[in-house]
Amino acid sequence: MNMEMKVLPTAADIDAAAHRLAGVAVRTPLVNSPALDERLGGRVFLKAETLQRMGAFKFRGAYNKMAQIPQAARAAGVVAFSSGNHAQAVAEAARLLGMPAVIVMPADAPRLKRERTAALGAEVVLYDRDRENREEIGRAIAQKRGATLVSPYDDPAIIAGQGTLGREIVEDLAALGLKPDLVVVQASGGGLAAGTALAIKSAVPSADLYTVEPEGFDDTLRSFRSGHREANTRMSGTICDGLMTPMPGELTFPLLCGLIGKGVTVSDEEVGRAVAFAFRELKLVVEPSGAIGLAAFLERKLDVRSKTAVAILSGGNVDTDLFCRLICA
Amino acid sequence: MNMEMKVLPTAADIDAAAHRLAGVAVRTPLVNSPALDERLGGRVFLKAETLQRMGAFKFRGAYNKMAQIPQAARAAGVVAFSSGNHAQAVAEAARLLGMPAVIVMPADAPRLKRERTAALGAEVVLYDRDRENREEIGRAIAQKRGATLVSPYDDPAIIAGQGTLGREIVEDLAALGLKPDLVVVQASGGGLAAGTALAIKSAVPSADLYTVEPEGFDDTLRSFRSGHREANTRMSGTICDGLMTPMPGELTFPLLCGLIGKGVTVSDEEVGRAVAFAFRELKLVVEPSGAIGLAAFLERKLDVRSKTAVAILSGGNVDTDLFCRLICA
Repeated sequence: MNMEMKVLPTAADIDAAAHRLAGVAVRTPLVNSPALDERLGGRVFLKAETLQRMGAFKFRGAYNKMAQIPQAARAAGVVAFSSGNHAQAVAEAARLLGMPAVIVMPADAPRLKRERTAALGAEVVLYDRDRENREEIGRAIAQKRGATLVSPYDDPAIIAGQGTLGREIVEDLAALGLKPDLVVVQASGGGLAAGTALAIKSAVPSADLYTVEPEGFDDTLRSFRSGHREANTRMSGTICDGLMTPMPGELTFPLLCGLIGKGVTVSDEEVGRAVAFAFRELKLVVEPSGAIGLAAFLERKLDVRSKTAVAILSGGNVDTDLFCRLICA
Repeated sequence: MNMEMKVLPTAADIDAAAHRLAGVAVRTPLVNSPALDERLGGRVFLKAETLQRMGAFKFRGAYNKMAQIPQAARAAGVVAFSSGNHAQAVAEAARLLGMPAVIVMPADAPRLKRERTAALGAEVVLYDRDRENREEIGRAIAQKRGATLVSPYDDPAIIAGQGTLGREIVEDLAALGLKPDLVVVQASGGGLAAGTALAIKSAVPSADLYTVEPEGFDDTLRSFRSGHREANTRMSGTICDGLMTPMPGELTFPLLCGLIGKGVTVSDEEVGRAVAFAFRELKLVVEPSGAIGLAAFLERKLDVRSKTAVAILSGGNVDTDLFCRLICA
């Protein structure tokens, strides 16, 4: 274990990440919709991270982590285990940095995701979801090749990278003469939530933050209540496929406790309605995990009236079939 | 006839329009996609006017026109004939300015469009597309009530309002240290094309501009070639329902000739592929008429290699069924 793994990131790490990402990541727009504002009675802003490289926020953390790998270690490459947005983010960052990448994916991952990852130049290693452990496979490959393992969230460089998104929210609101009163951020492993909270609270201590999770996958909320990391009881059964990690991260959880400490949950049906709303009213393609914060606002789980409120549209990688089902519902 | 109708707008009119629209219209983002840049070998920017009020650029012109109606004439309201984005733009501007609005629509217009227009507080007057003339009906209502007719394009205030979009393109590129080399703009009545061209050419005379039209509805391109206004032979038969006006406008055509003078055409199939590309790769919901400029780039009708190139995603109001058909194709 690398001792660096245990050091919590700071706002200065987010500043450094922002410099690393400048000109590489997309500086995604903070979208405002008069129709949404009128409907909810507040000034609602949506961080359209759907427009990020590879269609999700994950590129920020992956690139920030990988750009710090010393030159001598780059030839050995990186390893990641993911079938989702993290896989493609690591593959894309590796491509840009000229490093080899191995992505460990379940053998039953959608063909499109395997093909897209391979098309970026990454080597895809498949495992049997029922009989093999992806972490063990990933660690074994990393050890054998001397490659760097890129964790999806429990790494200070990943957290700082995702935090650049929060930094941009603060900057873009300031340019309009505004400060965030209320921010809702989706929590899974907690990299996005911890990084965003760190950036926002260090710039605007008065900002009120909430996590949002799918009903039945509220490990973070239950962990806030018990004071220690609780696990999800299931690992399938929500359309929010990006929000099903086993439990909050070792590194992210103390940050989430200190900076957020409270949250809400949203049902799949409510998330589906938010995806359809984003299509119909905002003209944005948002995956279910990406629409859950918007759903919390639309369903009045959080009261944004008279507030400057922000939700993060964290990604837009949704299967065509599912998307059409949701927007036709 | 109002003599004002014959005066061509200038860049100063666009500046004045920008001040009128500040804080009312959405300052839509100029979106950049690294994936698109790599695919096309240029720096491609997309003006995401899909995120405008009512999901299309039309609000700019309508509000700029209507905000200039003298207070004494406001109580009599406005009249417009349109079943598309102009109808909702006029209804929305009227709502914001506290004016009554009558929208003349064909009786067979989609129920959703009628309901949406009515929900904005406008009075919807239906006519029989086969037996009645919408212009005559609109003019009769305007005359009877003393209401102001809001033309969809052939009015200097409308052209100047749409031109604010071009002004923002120039400003946002300048903030990145860039100037537009190549701009493609969809042409129908020509309000968007004329206004955008005026804004861009007055700031960046070296910019190279092209119109883009659906195959078979290339009245503007044929008019460029003949030197006078040619009519479309059909008024149905393309998925680009926003690009089927009878011929270039009286006022817009001289501007288009002087500032653009050349154009390309794109087939419905190519437009459909661009809609699907925008969904899959850009995570943006774009209606066919809005995706036609992007299609011209993707299909290499215009060469953007090594250039700073701009297309306008002019609107995102697409029926769910058609959208799903296009993205599943």
